[in-house]
Amino acid sequence: MSDSSPVEILIVEDNPYDLEMTLRGFTSARMLNHIHVARDGEEALDFLFRRGSQATRPAGPLPRLILLDLKLPKVDGLEVLAAIRGHDSTRTVPVVMMTSSQEQSDLVRSYELGVNSYIVKPVQFEGFVRAVQEIGMYWMLLNQPPAVAG
Amino acid sequence: MSDSSPVEILIVEDNPYDLEMTLRGFTSARMLNHIHVARDGEEALDFLFRRGSQATRPAGPLPRLILLDLKLPKVDGLEVLAAIRGHDSTRTVPVVMMTSSQEQSDLVRSYELGVNSYIVKPVQFEGFVRAVQEIGMYWMLLNQPPAVAG
Repeated sequence: MSDSSPVEILIVEDNPYDLEMTLRGFTSARMLNHIHVARDGEEALDFLFRRGSQATRPAGPLPRLILLDLKLPKVDGLEVLAAIRGHDSTRTVPVVMMTSSQEQSDLVRSYELGVNSYIVKPVQFEGFVRAVQEIGMYWMLLNQPPAVAG
Repeated sequence: MSDSSPVEILIVEDNPYDLEMTLRGFTSARMLNHIHVARDGEEALDFLFRRGSQATRPAGPLPRLILLDLKLPKVDGLEVLAAIRGHDSTRTVPVVMMTSSQEQSDLVRSYELGVNSYIVKPVQFEGFVRAVQEIGMYWMLLNQPPAVAG
């Protein structure tokens, strides 16, 4: 997990408790991939497009998986998703929306914008951690990502 | 599994052996959802757009999951995917490409056309069945599909 290895999982999450459970899910699934955490949508886009505080980050492969919260400060999850799908360099990267929103409009809009998968965060701790394990195993071990350069 | 219940999983597969393993995977995961099998791309599109032999099929919700082989007779998997994404009524339905092709061009083109996930078929029987189980559990139990009418 050295800083120079390419980031394989980008987690975009502002809620410290949800972030803690997410990291615990990956750890308990022995997913010791290089993870980068962005705390809001702007940080996520800065990371992906190497601008702002990430302007000096060396180019490298894009993550195999972006786990994206929907309700985020500054730039919300739907805007982040639209930006990812709107840029040639990032438009095919797998994005899983993970959210507590069960609003039909968020669900439909996410699919319309091209999300790969939409997961409603389980309310209980154990269910949440298990969901992250399953997400990790599916997207990091079973799914074949596009070979994309960032 | 009565014929009048809505189809929840559409499998598009022309290879009898692969189809057998796919059905076994769903069965062993106790996924007794209503499954419809199309043997080529034309049959798949006839089913989804209720035309040809499926013209009299009553309208109903779209499948929660389409498992789509890439190399198909008549209309190939990439064309089927493009047609699904090109029609308002079907463009957000989850499509998992399951294929023996590891060709980079097939992978990239699938993501460009908006596939939700791309799985390379494991060569061995057990690995194949297990992959289908995992696909089934992820897309039928964890993923929240768009509520789409067909």
